[in-house]
Amino acid sequence: MTKIFLLSILFSLFLSTIAISSPMSENFQIFSIGVVKKTKQATAIEIYKKYEGALLGLHQFSHLIVCYWFHKNDTAEKRNILQVHPRGDQRNPLTGVFATRSPVRPNLIGISICKILSIDGNIIHIDKIDAFDGSPVIDLKPYIPRVDSIPDAHVPEWVGK
Amino acid sequence: MTKIFLLSILFSLFLSTIAISSPMSENFQIFSIGVVKKTKQATAIEIYKKYEGALLGLHQFSHLIVCYWFHKNDTAEKRNILQVHPRGDQRNPLTGVFATRSPVRPNLIGISICKILSIDGNIIHIDKIDAFDGSPVIDLKPYIPRVDSIPDAHVPEWVGK
Repeated sequence: MTKIFLLSILFSLFLSTIAISSPMSENFQIFSIGVVKKTKQATAIEIYKKYEGALLGLHQFSHLIVCYWFHKNDTAEKRNILQVHPRGDQRNPLTGVFATRSPVRPNLIGISICKILSIDGNIIHIDKIDAFDGSPVIDLKPYIPRVDSIPDAHVPEWVGK
Repeated sequence: MTKIFLLSILFSLFLSTIAISSPMSENFQIFSIGVVKKTKQATAIEIYKKYEGALLGLHQFSHLIVCYWFHKNDTAEKRNILQVHPRGDQRNPLTGVFATRSPVRPNLIGISICKILSIDGNIIHIDKIDAFDGSPVIDLKPYIPRVDSIPDAHVPEWVGK
Protein backbone atom coordinates (compact mmCIF):
# COMPACT_ATOMS: atom_id res chain seq x y z
CA MET A 1 0.00 0.00 0.00
CA THR A 2 2.82 2.44 0.96
CA LYS A 3 4.62 1.35 -2.22
CA ILE A 4 1.62 2.28 -4.39
CA PHE A 5 1.34 5.60 -2.55
CA LEU A 6 5.01 6.43 -3.17
CA LEU A 7 4.78 5.37 -6.81
CA SER A 8 1.75 7.61 -7.37
CA ILE A 9 3.62 10.58 -5.84
CA LEU A 10 6.60 9.91 -8.11
CA PHE A 11 4.28 9.68 -11.13
CA SER A 12 2.62 13.01 -10.22
CA LEU A 13 6.05 14.65 -9.92
CA PHE A 14 6.99 13.22 -13.34
CA LEU A 15 3.81 14.64 -14.90
CA SER A 16 4.36 18.10 -13.39
CA THR A 17 7.94 18.10 -14.79
CA ILE A 18 6.54 17.52 -18.28
CA ALA A 19 4.03 20.34 -17.78
CA ILE A 20 6.79 22.75 -16.75
CA SER A 21 9.35 21.80 -19.39
CA SER A 22 7.12 21.84 -22.48
CA PRO A 23 4.56 24.63 -22.86
CA MET A 24 1.16 23.09 -23.58
CA SER A 25 -0.97 24.32 -26.45
CA GLU A 26 -4.41 25.29 -25.18
CA ASN A 27 -7.65 24.74 -27.08
CA PHE A 28 -10.46 27.25 -27.50
CA GLN A 29 -13.89 27.08 -29.10
CA ILE A 30 -15.02 29.70 -31.55
CA PHE A 31 -18.24 29.89 -33.55
CA SER A 32 -19.53 31.90 -36.46
CA ILE A 33 -21.45 35.09 -35.62
CA GLY A 34 -22.45 35.73 -39.22
CA VAL A 35 -21.52 35.12 -42.82
CA VAL A 36 -20.00 36.97 -45.80
CA LYS A 37 -22.58 37.62 -48.56
CA LYS A 38 -21.22 38.42 -52.00
CA THR A 39 -23.07 38.95 -55.24
CA LYS A 40 -21.85 40.57 -58.45
CA GLN A 41 -23.56 43.77 -57.36
CA ALA A 42 -22.83 44.03 -53.66
CA THR A 43 -20.89 42.76 -50.65
CA ALA A 44 -22.24 42.52 -47.12
CA ILE A 45 -21.72 40.93 -43.73
CA GLU A 46 -24.89 39.27 -42.47
CA ILE A 47 -24.79 39.00 -38.69
CA TYR A 48 -27.03 36.36 -37.14
CA LYS A 49 -30.15 37.98 -35.65
CA LYS A 50 -29.18 36.94 -32.09
CA TYR A 51 -26.05 39.16 -32.30
CA GLU A 52 -27.74 42.23 -33.85
CA GLY A 53 -27.53 44.08 -30.49
CA ALA A 54 -23.72 43.86 -30.68
CA LEU A 55 -23.78 46.25 -33.65
CA LEU A 56 -25.15 49.21 -31.64
CA GLY A 57 -23.12 52.31 -32.51
CA LEU A 58 -21.09 50.69 -35.30
CA HIS A 59 -22.57 53.11 -37.87
CA GLN A 60 -20.47 55.88 -36.27
CA PHE A 61 -17.29 54.28 -37.60
CA SER A 62 -16.20 54.50 -41.24
CA HIS A 63 -14.19 51.25 -41.27
CA LEU A 64 -14.41 47.79 -39.78
CA ILE A 65 -11.99 44.98 -38.98
CA VAL A 66 -13.64 41.76 -40.14
CA CYS A 67 -12.32 38.47 -38.76
CA TYR A 68 -13.45 35.45 -40.73
CA TRP A 69 -12.62 31.76 -41.00
CA PHE A 70 -10.81 30.25 -44.00
CA HIS A 71 -13.36 27.42 -43.89
CA LYS A 72 -12.26 25.80 -47.16
CA ASN A 73 -8.87 24.97 -45.60
CA ASP A 74 -10.10 23.44 -42.36
CA THR A 75 -8.19 20.15 -42.59
CA ALA A 76 -5.41 18.90 -40.30
CA GLU A 77 -3.11 18.73 -43.34
CA LYS A 78 -3.52 22.39 -44.35
CA ARG A 79 -3.38 23.57 -40.74
CA ASN A 80 0.03 21.95 -40.43
CA ILE A 81 1.58 23.89 -43.32
CA LEU A 82 4.17 26.31 -41.87
CA GLN A 83 5.81 27.75 -44.99
CA VAL A 84 4.49 28.82 -48.40
CA HIS A 85 5.49 30.74 -51.50
CA PRO A 86 3.29 33.84 -51.06
CA ARG A 87 0.27 33.96 -53.41
CA GLY A 88 1.29 30.48 -54.65
CA ASP A 89 3.95 32.13 -56.82
CA GLN A 90 7.22 30.14 -56.86
CA ARG A 91 9.11 33.37 -57.66
CA ASN A 92 8.22 34.68 -54.20
CA PRO A 93 10.64 33.45 -51.51
CA LEU A 94 9.61 30.53 -49.29
CA THR A 95 8.09 32.33 -46.29
CA GLY A 96 6.70 31.35 -42.89
CA VAL A 97 2.89 31.56 -42.81
CA PHE A 98 3.10 34.01 -39.87
CA ALA A 99 4.99 36.36 -42.26
CA THR A 100 2.23 36.09 -44.89
CA ARG A 101 -1.54 36.58 -45.10
CA SER A 102 -1.86 33.05 -46.53
CA PRO A 103 -5.23 31.32 -46.03
CA VAL A 104 -3.37 28.20 -44.87
CA ARG A 105 -2.14 28.62 -41.29
CA PRO A 106 -2.53 26.82 -37.95
CA ASN A 107 -5.59 28.88 -36.94
CA LEU A 108 -7.55 29.76 -40.06
CA ILE A 109 -8.24 33.38 -39.09
CA GLY A 110 -8.53 35.92 -41.91
CA ILE A 111 -8.50 39.67 -41.26
CA SER A 112 -9.70 42.36 -43.67
CA ILE A 113 -10.24 46.07 -43.20
CA CYS A 114 -13.53 47.04 -44.86
CA LYS A 115 -15.27 50.34 -45.54
CA ILE A 116 -18.78 50.50 -44.08
CA LEU A 117 -21.27 51.74 -46.69
CA SER A 118 -24.42 51.41 -44.56
CA ILE A 119 -25.92 49.23 -41.85
CA ASP A 120 -29.47 47.92 -42.21
CA GLY A 121 -30.51 45.95 -39.12
CA ASN A 122 -28.23 42.90 -39.04
CA ILE A 123 -26.78 43.55 -42.53
CA ILE A 124 -23.55 45.57 -42.87
CA HIS A 125 -23.01 46.71 -46.44
CA ILE A 126 -19.28 47.03 -47.17
CA ASP A 127 -17.18 48.06 -50.17
CA LYS A 128 -15.34 44.77 -50.64
CA ILE A 129 -13.68 41.91 -48.78
CA ASP A 130 -11.00 39.40 -49.69
CA ALA A 131 -13.16 36.44 -48.58
CA PHE A 132 -15.52 34.01 -50.30
CA ASP A 133 -19.28 34.31 -50.37
CA GLY A 134 -20.32 32.08 -47.48
CA SER A 135 -17.17 32.57 -45.37
CA PRO A 136 -18.06 32.31 -41.67
CA VAL A 137 -17.52 35.62 -39.84
CA ILE A 138 -16.09 35.18 -36.32
CA ASP A 139 -15.58 38.73 -35.03
CA LEU A 140 -16.03 42.39 -35.92
CA LYS A 141 -14.06 45.30 -34.49
CA PRO A 142 -14.19 49.02 -35.19
CA TYR A 143 -11.13 50.38 -36.99
CA ILE A 144 -9.36 52.95 -34.82
CA PRO A 145 -6.56 54.76 -36.74
CA ARG A 146 -4.81 55.87 -33.54
CA VAL A 147 -3.85 52.22 -32.84
CA ASP A 148 -4.45 50.45 -36.17
CA SER A 149 -2.92 52.77 -38.79
CA ILE A 150 0.85 52.63 -39.39
CA PRO A 151 1.25 54.24 -42.83
CA ASP A 152 5.06 53.99 -42.85
CA ALA A 153 5.40 50.33 -41.80
CA HIS A 154 8.11 48.50 -43.76
CA VAL A 155 7.46 45.40 -45.83
CA PRO A 156 9.78 43.23 -47.96
CA GLU A 157 9.89 43.61 -51.75
CA TRP A 158 7.69 40.58 -52.57
CA VAL A 159 4.69 42.22 -50.87
CA GLY A 160 4.66 44.96 -53.52
CA LYS A 161 3.23 48.45 -53.32
CA MET B 1 -44.95 0.21 -38.87
CA THR B 2 -45.97 2.36 -41.88
CA LYS B 3 -47.22 4.99 -39.44
CA ILE B 4 -43.79 5.21 -37.76
CA PHE B 5 -42.12 5.41 -41.15
CA LEU B 6 -44.38 8.27 -42.25
CA LEU B 7 -43.90 10.08 -38.95
CA SER B 8 -40.10 9.83 -39.22
CA ILE B 9 -40.25 11.28 -42.76
CA LEU B 10 -42.40 14.17 -41.52
CA PHE B 11 -39.98 14.77 -38.64
CA SER B 12 -36.98 14.84 -41.04
CA LEU B 13 -38.80 17.36 -43.24
CA PHE B 14 -39.52 19.47 -40.16
CA LEU B 15 -35.83 19.41 -39.16
CA SER B 16 -34.65 20.40 -42.65
CA THR B 17 -37.11 23.33 -42.61
CA ILE B 18 -35.50 24.60 -39.39
CA ALA B 19 -32.04 24.23 -40.94
CA ILE B 20 -33.08 26.30 -43.97
CA SER B 21 -34.98 29.04 -42.15
CA SER B 22 -32.49 29.82 -39.37
CA PRO B 23 -28.79 30.06 -40.23
CA MET B 24 -26.79 27.71 -38.03
CA SER B 25 -23.78 28.87 -36.11
CA GLU B 26 -20.74 26.74 -36.96
CA ASN B 27 -18.07 25.72 -34.46
CA PHE B 28 -14.33 25.81 -35.02
CA GLN B 29 -11.34 24.71 -32.97
CA ILE B 30 -8.44 27.04 -32.35
CA PHE B 31 -5.36 26.53 -30.22
CA SER B 32 -2.57 28.67 -28.88
CA ILE B 33 0.57 28.92 -31.01
CA GLY B 34 2.51 30.85 -28.37
CA VAL B 35 2.18 33.15 -25.40
CA VAL B 36 2.65 36.83 -24.47
CA LYS B 37 5.66 37.39 -22.17
CA LYS B 38 5.75 40.64 -20.24
CA THR B 39 8.20 41.83 -17.64
CA LYS B 40 8.81 45.36 -16.36
CA GLN B 41 11.77 45.57 -18.73
CA ALA B 42 10.54 43.95 -21.92
CA THR B 43 7.64 42.54 -23.93
CA ALA B 44 7.84 39.56 -26.24
CA ILE B 45 5.81 36.93 -28.07
CA GLU B 46 7.14 33.44 -27.40
CA ILE B 47 6.10 31.11 -30.21
CA TYR B 48 6.07 27.41 -29.37
CA LYS B 49 9.14 25.70 -30.85
CA LYS B 50 7.08 23.54 -33.21
CA TYR B 51 5.87 26.72 -35.03
CA GLU B 52 9.27 28.44 -35.28
CA GLY B 53 9.44 27.65 -39.02
CA ALA B 54 6.31 29.77 -39.55
CA LEU B 55 8.35 32.89 -38.63
CA LEU B 56 10.68 32.63 -41.66
CA GLY B 57 10.98 36.08 -43.23
CA LEU B 58 9.04 37.93 -40.54
CA HIS B 59 12.14 40.00 -39.65
CA GLN B 60 11.70 41.85 -42.97
CA PHE B 61 8.54 43.51 -41.65
CA SER B 62 8.56 46.41 -39.19
CA HIS B 63 5.11 45.69 -37.68
CA LEU B 64 3.05 42.67 -36.75
CA ILE B 65 -0.66 41.96 -36.22
CA VAL B 66 -0.90 39.85 -33.06
CA CYS B 67 -4.12 37.88 -32.48
CA TYR B 68 -4.50 36.66 -28.92
CA TRP B 69 -7.18 35.16 -26.71
CA PHE B 70 -8.86 37.09 -23.86
CA HIS B 71 -8.46 33.94 -21.73
CA LYS B 72 -9.56 35.58 -18.47
CA ASN B 73 -13.06 36.09 -19.92
CA ASP B 74 -13.62 32.59 -21.28
CA THR B 75 -16.96 31.91 -19.56
CA ALA B 76 -20.37 31.40 -21.19
CA GLU B 77 -21.66 34.39 -19.21
CA LYS B 78 -19.05 36.87 -20.49
CA ARG B 79 -19.24 35.51 -24.04
CA ASN B 80 -22.96 36.31 -24.05
CA ILE B 81 -22.48 40.02 -23.27
CA LEU B 82 -23.49 42.01 -26.37
CA GLN B 83 -23.32 45.61 -25.13
CA VAL B 84 -20.94 47.50 -22.84
CA HIS B 85 -20.00 51.00 -21.75
CA PRO B 86 -16.59 51.28 -23.47
CA ARG B 87 -13.62 51.05 -21.05
CA GLY B 88 -16.15 50.33 -18.26
CA ASP B 89 -16.87 54.06 -18.09
CA GLN B 90 -20.59 54.79 -17.60
CA ARG B 91 -20.10 58.19 -19.26
CA ASN B 92 -19.38 56.41 -22.55
CA PRO B 93 -22.59 55.48 -24.43
CA LEU B 94 -23.87 51.90 -24.24
CA THR B 95 -22.27 50.32 -27.31
CA GLY B 96 -22.43 46.95 -29.07
CA VAL B 97 -19.29 44.88 -28.47
CA PHE B 98 -18.69 44.68 -32.25
CA ALA B 99 -18.38 48.49 -32.17
CA THR B 100 -15.77 48.35 -29.37
CA ARG B 101 -12.45 46.62 -28.70
CA SER B 102 -13.87 45.26 -25.44
CA PRO B 103 -12.27 42.05 -24.09
CA VAL B 104 -15.76 40.60 -23.55
CA ARG B 105 -17.26 39.44 -26.83
CA PRO B 106 -18.68 36.20 -28.30
CA ASN B 107 -15.30 35.08 -29.67
CA LEU B 108 -12.56 36.32 -27.34
CA ILE B 109 -10.18 37.45 -30.08
CA GLY B 110 -7.92 40.41 -29.33
CA ILE B 111 -5.95 42.21 -32.05
CA SER B 112 -2.96 44.50 -31.50
CA ILE B 113 -0.55 46.07 -33.95
CA CYS B 114 2.98 45.75 -32.53
CA LYS B 115 6.36 47.06 -33.57
CA ILE B 116 8.95 44.31 -34.08
CA LEU B 117 12.19 45.16 -32.25
CA SER B 118 14.06 41.93 -33.04
CA ILE B 119 13.47 38.22 -33.56
CA ASP B 120 15.61 35.69 -31.74
CA GLY B 121 14.68 32.13 -32.76
CA ASN B 122 11.13 31.62 -31.50
CA ILE B 123 11.08 34.88 -29.49
CA ILE B 124 9.72 38.06 -31.10
CA HIS B 125 10.70 41.14 -29.10
CA ILE B 126 8.05 43.85 -29.51
CA ASP B 127 7.60 47.40 -28.22
CA LYS B 128 4.36 46.83 -26.31
CA ILE B 129 1.04 45.01 -26.41
CA ASP B 130 -2.33 45.63 -24.80
CA ALA B 131 -2.51 42.03 -23.45
CA PHE B 132 -1.65 40.31 -20.18
CA ASP B 133 1.54 38.40 -19.49
CA GLY B 134 0.50 34.82 -20.23
CA SER B 135 -2.18 35.65 -22.81
CA PRO B 136 -2.41 32.81 -25.35
CA VAL B 137 -1.36 33.93 -28.85
CA ILE B 138 -3.48 32.42 -31.63
CA ASP B 139 -2.16 33.99 -34.85
CA LEU B 140 0.46 36.38 -36.22
CA LYS B 141 0.24 38.32 -39.46
CA PRO B 142 2.60 40.81 -41.09
CA TYR B 143 1.28 44.38 -41.13
CA ILE B 144 0.87 45.59 -44.72
CA PRO B 145 0.08 49.34 -44.88
CA ARG B 146 -1.39 49.08 -48.40
CA VAL B 147 -4.35 47.09 -47.01
CA ASP B 148 -4.16 47.72 -43.23
CA SER B 149 -3.53 51.45 -42.87
CA ILE B 150 -6.50 53.86 -43.14
CA PRO B 151 -5.17 57.06 -41.49
CA ASP B 152 -8.35 59.07 -42.13
CA ALA B 153 -10.90 56.53 -40.86
CA HIS B 154 -13.70 58.16 -38.81
CA VAL B 155 -14.48 57.22 -35.22
CA PRO B 156 -17.11 58.53 -32.79
CA GLU B 157 -16.18 61.04 -30.10
CA TRP B 158 -15.97 58.53 -27.20
CA VAL B 159 -13.00 56.81 -28.84
CA GLY B 160 -10.86 59.92 -28.38
CA LYS B 161 -7.79 60.99 -30.31
